[in-house]
Amino acid sequence: MSVPVTLTTSPKQKPAADSLGFGKFFTDHMFVLDYSSAKGWHDGRIIPYEPISLDPASKVFHYGQAIFEGLKAYITVDGEALLFRPDRNFARLNHSAERLCIPAIDEQQALEALKQLVEVDRAWIPAEAGTSLYIRPFIIATEADLGVDESTEYKFIIIMSPSGSYYAEGINPVKIMVEKKYVRAVVGGTGEAKTSGNYASSLISSKEAHEQGYSQTLWLDGKENKYVEEVGSMNIFFKINGTVVTPELTGSILPGITRDSMIQVLKHKNIPIEERHIAIDEVIDAHTNGTLEEVFGTGTAAVISPVGRLLWEGEELVINNEEIGDVSQLLYDTLTGIQSGKINDDFNWTIRLT
Amino acid sequence: MSVPVTLTTSPKQKPAADSLGFGKFFTDHMFVLDYSSAKGWHDGRIIPYEPISLDPASKVFHYGQAIFEGLKAYITVDGEALLFRPDRNFARLNHSAERLCIPAIDEQQALEALKQLVEVDRAWIPAEAGTSLYIRPFIIATEADLGVDESTEYKFIIIMSPSGSYYAEGINPVKIMVEKKYVRAVVGGTGEAKTSGNYASSLISSKEAHEQGYSQTLWLDGKENKYVEEVGSMNIFFKINGTVVTPELTGSILPGITRDSMIQVLKHKNIPIEERHIAIDEVIDAHTNGTLEEVFGTGTAAVISPVGRLLWEGEELVINNEEIGDVSQLLYDTLTGIQSGKINDDFNWTIRLT
Repeated sequence: MSVPVTLTTSPKQKPAADSLGFGKFFTDHMFVLDYSSAKGWHDGRIIPYEPISLDPASKVFHYGQAIFEGLKAYITVDGEALLFRPDRNFARLNHSAERLCIPAIDEQQALEALKQLVEVDRAWIPAEAGTSLYIRPFIIATEADLGVDESTEYKFIIIMSPSGSYYAEGINPVKIMVEKKYVRAVVGGTGEAKTSGNYASSLISSKEAHEQGYSQTLWLDGKENKYVEEVGSMNIFFKINGTVVTPELTGSILPGITRDSMIQVLKHKNIPIEERHIAIDEVIDAHTNGTLEEVFGTGTAAVISPVGRLLWEGEELVINNEEIGDVSQLLYDTLTGIQSGKINDDFNWTIRLT
Repeated sequence: MSVPVTLTTSPKQKPAADSLGFGKFFTDHMFVLDYSSAKGWHDGRIIPYEPISLDPASKVFHYGQAIFEGLKAYITVDGEALLFRPDRNFARLNHSAERLCIPAIDEQQALEALKQLVEVDRAWIPAEAGTSLYIRPFIIATEADLGVDESTEYKFIIIMSPSGSYYAEGINPVKIMVEKKYVRAVVGGTGEAKTSGNYASSLISSKEAHEQGYSQTLWLDGKENKYVEEVGSMNIFFKINGTVVTPELTGSILPGITRDSMIQVLKHKNIPIEERHIAIDEVIDAHTNGTLEEVFGTGTAAVISPVGRLLWEGEELVINNEEIGDVSQLLYDTLTGIQSGKINDDFNWTIRLT
């Protein structure tokens, strides 16, 4: 079932591949689907990319009912367009919707609409190594009413942005600061939902990290400030004495789709992987006794970010000589290999557009 | 210093006083102030109330940089218009701005703009007992860029809504449910900022409370799920054995302006008042031994909401026979008396518009 398409009459010029950056340019079209309590989700359509006009009393501006997803379309080495696990993104969007009292979307219809939108703007998918078309589905509350309760009207929108290689030179170890003052999320809160408020809350920590020369924050749990949770925009993994360990999903951690893919690849390669609580003290101890072999973050944007330095209580731990570890490299090669069509998709994760 | 005014050419019909409700109708004009990193806050203006046009990549939709305030204008018994402690709202807005990495506004200029806006729409302030003009200043991030960092562009907007009496029959005891599953905020998070994400996170709890016949949620702290913090849209007070107790401001509680006013009135009346940690167990114990004399919430919308029933672990505590207590009544009469000009403003809290 396809949705009606209104093509733009003034297509934009496409930016050069080396000027893309992340999330700065947008394609010619967008998908929009409306919700009202009377009609449910209705009127799905692909239209030219254009501003949204909203009443200033719209609930999204006041009470933050806003959730989103991030995924990518790639051009394979054979020139085909593919999506990576998009079904998981729409499933997670509905999981976030439930927490925020937003009505669920039809995941299958959303996927069909996305495929149609990517086809319409297919020429916007950059083909250079490391580049991709970043896709941002999101839902916002649009009812104009200041009562503090869930909105009766919403918009589900998909916009797309051609994006450059996250690191110009491939994968590159980053410097991360362990955050002790601010808290991202606590069990019972919205940490496992991909909602705008989680990001708003984290900005001050990133800002302070940047000022000290670190690229992101490593969050600890909100109850005890003791257990590792996740990095600013990534899940986190530690290789300690041959075993890869990542925090289990406790309810305050975002269930990353790249995280899940990495765990499956590790199991497939027979590399020991544990999902469990990890105290920051365990990480420090492992570093002290020489068993902290690799640290890396995973996420849609960078796929893998090895952590070269970790700041904790004023001391900087250097990890694996600030080099990319074997497991990090293997995971990166496997995932980007599948995404670029260079290696076989044994996991059935990719959807090729016909 | 006044800002330029563009008057509407199509004024709306004003709703009848008995149909107002809360936050449903908006006046003819709004105040808008823009921010860019190059110009700072600039171009303050009063214009007809109208939709805002935003790029779908605007950061407010994705990363939730959105803060707000709520205050009221009243018509006194002498027919004058007055504002109640508006300086405190703009100070708190800047406090919220700091936590969310939003550039500070000039509080004095914002107050002058607000006074000018209220003058322009003065005919919209309802004069019936218990009614008022609810004022909603808010700031949203408007830069169109999906990078997870603070916006370089914002809008500060003030909209206004004529609002009815919160309780048709004056003040009326409400039923409150103590929340054990969900958490509103944790120290290190955004609990003391008035940001949209805090409200988004709370909706599911209110929804479940409503389904069980309760009007709001009483939140416990996020670390130990033990100490009382605040109610959905109010701060909370307990009168135990002659002393009024309210949770101290720990960093996860909203510093309510009505809360502060109540504390000052209590001190002025020589009624014992303590700001300190209060475990929910202490409240239950006081009820059991008969010393829990009153429970009430305070906030801009309702001024005072006595709590008649409190649900805790499946048991419902009936408080003060579901009647309004003496202290609740005294505080309500004092605050609404000052706001309506019926009693003298010994605290210098009101600003009369000339």
